[in-house]
Amino acid sequence: MESHHEHETPFKRIGIIGAGSMGSMMSLGLAEKGHFISLWDVNSGNVRSAMEKAQQESKTKYNVEGFFDIRAFADSFGDQRKLIILSISHGKPADEVLKLLNEAGILKPDDIVLDGGNEHWRTTERRQKTLDSQGVKWIGLGVSGGYQSARRGPSLCPGGDEETIKQVLPVLEKFAAKYETEAGRERPCVEYVGPDGAGHFVKMVHNGIENGMLGAVCEAWGFMRAGLNMAEDEIGNVFSIWNKQGQLRGTYLLEIGSEICRKRQTRSGDQNGEGKGTDFVLDEVLDKVVQDDDDTEGTGYWSVMESAERHISAPTIAAAQFLRVASGNRSQRLKVAEKLNLPKPQRIQLKHEEEGNVIEDLRMAVYSAVLASYCQGLELIAHASKVQDWNIDLATCIRIWRAGCIIQSDHIADMLESTFAKESAPGLQHTFTNLKLIQEIADEFHQNFSYLKRTVSRGIESDAYITTLSSTLEYLKYEAGEMLPTRFMEAEMDFFGAHGFDRPGVDKEDPGEAKKGAHHYEWRPA
Amino acid sequence: MESHHEHETPFKRIGIIGAGSMGSMMSLGLAEKGHFISLWDVNSGNVRSAMEKAQQESKTKYNVEGFFDIRAFADSFGDQRKLIILSISHGKPADEVLKLLNEAGILKPDDIVLDGGNEHWRTTERRQKTLDSQGVKWIGLGVSGGYQSARRGPSLCPGGDEETIKQVLPVLEKFAAKYETEAGRERPCVEYVGPDGAGHFVKMVHNGIENGMLGAVCEAWGFMRAGLNMAEDEIGNVFSIWNKQGQLRGTYLLEIGSEICRKRQTRSGDQNGEGKGTDFVLDEVLDKVVQDDDDTEGTGYWSVMESAERHISAPTIAAAQFLRVASGNRSQRLKVAEKLNLPKPQRIQLKHEEEGNVIEDLRMAVYSAVLASYCQGLELIAHASKVQDWNIDLATCIRIWRAGCIIQSDHIADMLESTFAKESAPGLQHTFTNLKLIQEIADEFHQNFSYLKRTVSRGIESDAYITTLSSTLEYLKYEAGEMLPTRFMEAEMDFFGAHGFDRPGVDKEDPGEAKKGAHHYEWRPA
Repeated sequence: MESHHEHETPFKRIGIIGAGSMGSMMSLGLAEKGHFISLWDVNSGNVRSAMEKAQQESKTKYNVEGFFDIRAFADSFGDQRKLIILSISHGKPADEVLKLLNEAGILKPDDIVLDGGNEHWRTTERRQKTLDSQGVKWIGLGVSGGYQSARRGPSLCPGGDEETIKQVLPVLEKFAAKYETEAGRERPCVEYVGPDGAGHFVKMVHNGIENGMLGAVCEAWGFMRAGLNMAEDEIGNVFSIWNKQGQLRGTYLLEIGSEICRKRQTRSGDQNGEGKGTDFVLDEVLDKVVQDDDDTEGTGYWSVMESAERHISAPTIAAAQFLRVASGNRSQRLKVAEKLNLPKPQRIQLKHEEEGNVIEDLRMAVYSAVLASYCQGLELIAHASKVQDWNIDLATCIRIWRAGCIIQSDHIADMLESTFAKESAPGLQHTFTNLKLIQEIADEFHQNFSYLKRTVSRGIESDAYITTLSSTLEYLKYEAGEMLPTRFMEAEMDFFGAHGFDRPGVDKEDPGEAKKGAHHYEWRPA
Repeated sequence: MESHHEHETPFKRIGIIGAGSMGSMMSLGLAEKGHFISLWDVNSGNVRSAMEKAQQESKTKYNVEGFFDIRAFADSFGDQRKLIILSISHGKPADEVLKLLNEAGILKPDDIVLDGGNEHWRTTERRQKTLDSQGVKWIGLGVSGGYQSARRGPSLCPGGDEETIKQVLPVLEKFAAKYETEAGRERPCVEYVGPDGAGHFVKMVHNGIENGMLGAVCEAWGFMRAGLNMAEDEIGNVFSIWNKQGQLRGTYLLEIGSEICRKRQTRSGDQNGEGKGTDFVLDEVLDKVVQDDDDTEGTGYWSVMESAERHISAPTIAAAQFLRVASGNRSQRLKVAEKLNLPKPQRIQLKHEEEGNVIEDLRMAVYSAVLASYCQGLELIAHASKVQDWNIDLATCIRIWRAGCIIQSDHIADMLESTFAKESAPGLQHTFTNLKLIQEIADEFHQNFSYLKRTVSRGIESDAYITTLSSTLEYLKYEAGEMLPTRFMEAEMDFFGAHGFDRPGVDKEDPGEAKKGAHHYEWRPA
């Protein structure tokens, strides 16, 4: 009877390969939605502990089947068309699993693989080409929200063959995070993003934006902690207020940030029984972010690479990335600290009249950096979409990012979605490769500028770490600068390299195109 | 008789392909050193104008032979072993020329091609592999110094087969820029750098450092122009003084910068007869730097990409790169400027006691950024050398960069060369992947920190463009930070992604290694 039932609902059974924190949570999440899950992992221990978790809940108890053998895993589908979700680290580990699948002859024509790992989009395109010749559909599926969302409903951005994605969309829509539209309708955070590697590209950019946001929020935390001498729970209250209304309303990283700041250690300690006491858990966390350095994550630095390669200025995202990287090797950093012996972050000296405004200035500074991260990321998508012919709709990205993902920020989503709708109206020229050309976005930056400037100024004075915030300030200045000091750079390049320059006030040269200047001056005879 | 003579001196005849600004100047430079030059270009006009230049000088008049046909070019070598220098834009143009050479069967076993273009090191390695099967030696030859140096003596960094490079080294040594060693000996700025793509990698990094330096110097120019309301020739005097002694002694970009600032238009105008008058030439230069955007240059953004991929924090270089990119599309920038409507750079408000110190602060700030650019670039080389097994000696790079190249900076070269010599002494651990671990370098940064901080602070207050300088300030802070705000980032990542963290004060965790932390806290049950 069961197999008959399975035939009626397509993809009643779903295979999940990889039972790490993401894979196991997706197993539970999809099982809860009524699917039968076949779960396999090269590491049997991972399968076992995922099964244990499944056993603890009535809704998942009977629906998750763990396998220690890949052929048994394959047999569990019978002669049905297989839908398999991969939850494996990018690059080599994923290639190895794919090799295993091929050697065991498990993938048949029409089978669908959704690669839910953070794979590089070019690798995804390579696999799509290879597997297409076997008739197997390979979809790059961005999965955002971490293990927390993987359990309750992630944000999903699939890229690849549109027909195939349409076939699996009902499954993904049921599983994905939901948000309520203005009209009061519930809508899932998953849509077809684009062909080829478009899905993984958009997920990469999501993580780039996430980096910029993480940088800004952690700098704000440090600013309040060291500069304003605030206690953890006080900072938590501030984040909570920021999250409730205004420009940072509904920002996931603030929501969890406020929880983190207020979380005290319990008497039983963490899952290992460690960290017992009444202090804040946060006090027990070191400052090493290592996922870039150990290459388990690539999306952050890939975003920087793509921005550089595609000539998109993305200093907010890059600044946060370089800060992260510097944090990882703490051992070396402490030695450098001893040798350089620089002043540590100090208490900010406030004039009396400033006191009430410092936090408000900081809030707007963080907002500027968050919005700048969004602009830099979305411009990167718009540019790549044009060059790769992906036809990605930026409004789709915003809708997908409305819930279940790390960069969720409701005010920004509201503003961008309505702005994009207006700008996409027939007859209007799209300006999505430079979002600062859109008046609503420009207005936001204009309004925040003085707040951001005051905050950066205080940060410099007090030796706070403000690389993400100060990069954002400079970004706004030069993106909107009428006459940049690069005129001196241009003259130097013409001096030594005969690079050529254009002249001010000359027709077709000023502003002119972004191409080699019409004039060379022989500054010094060669 | 002539052919007999040619046989005696190896590589008496040199082929040059590409007669643009670099190729034509190299033709003249090598002809002057006594070589016979066979010059060919797909564009006959380039060959003609190079020939005209050669005709104007007695030393080059009879030694440069231009060819409009590639077979005639090849025949000019007779049956000799060919040495050909390529001076072609990277990527496709170079591939097309290589295709032409192959189709015409011009490259024979044992022939040597020195690719003097700014090619990507991976492309160079690809070509080396392909041509090696034909017995042709392909050397990636970094050529620095622009057309000015190409004429009088460039800085050269060859990478590839060591034996082959040794064979051509006498030719390159004669041609290269020279500097005087402490012992009073003359030494050429060319040495074997490493195998494979090492030469082009080092040249790429040279240009990355150049970017950081160009950013810092142009920001200093803007700071004095707008912030201190100084006239061009006053700024020229400042650059000239900086260049004479102290930390920025012998810095090529300041040397030419001071000339640029003082250069007034002549009555006859530039080479096109334009720009007649008595004003400064610089006033006629627009602020568009376009070589990244139009992809005629890749080295700047490749440096950013390589830093990101290899987990080297290089914010000074990246900041300058993103500033350059933003400058290129002036037309769009002016529209954004109108919409954002930000304050323009203002006159700096100085307290009386500061007045004498502003320029000195600025000088030290520029020095910090220049030294930081060197550190970031050299660390990138050290890291790549380790991973690619190139065995590059950083002291070699410094010697090659001592004259003839754009990043020449004598005080820095003196300091780094003696420091590297000490650190490389037997029994000492190499710390070249993090140069801030070296006491001498750390001391320099320590001493400059307050100058840099004051300058950045003034720049923020006065809305100056200071992205390269402020990125450097933040870089120093977080590279030498004992407790970064990334502890909050780490907690957030553990919250949503179960990324794990290490604990302060726990053995093997603090400082511990740069690997996934030992603890996960279930901040909110998933």
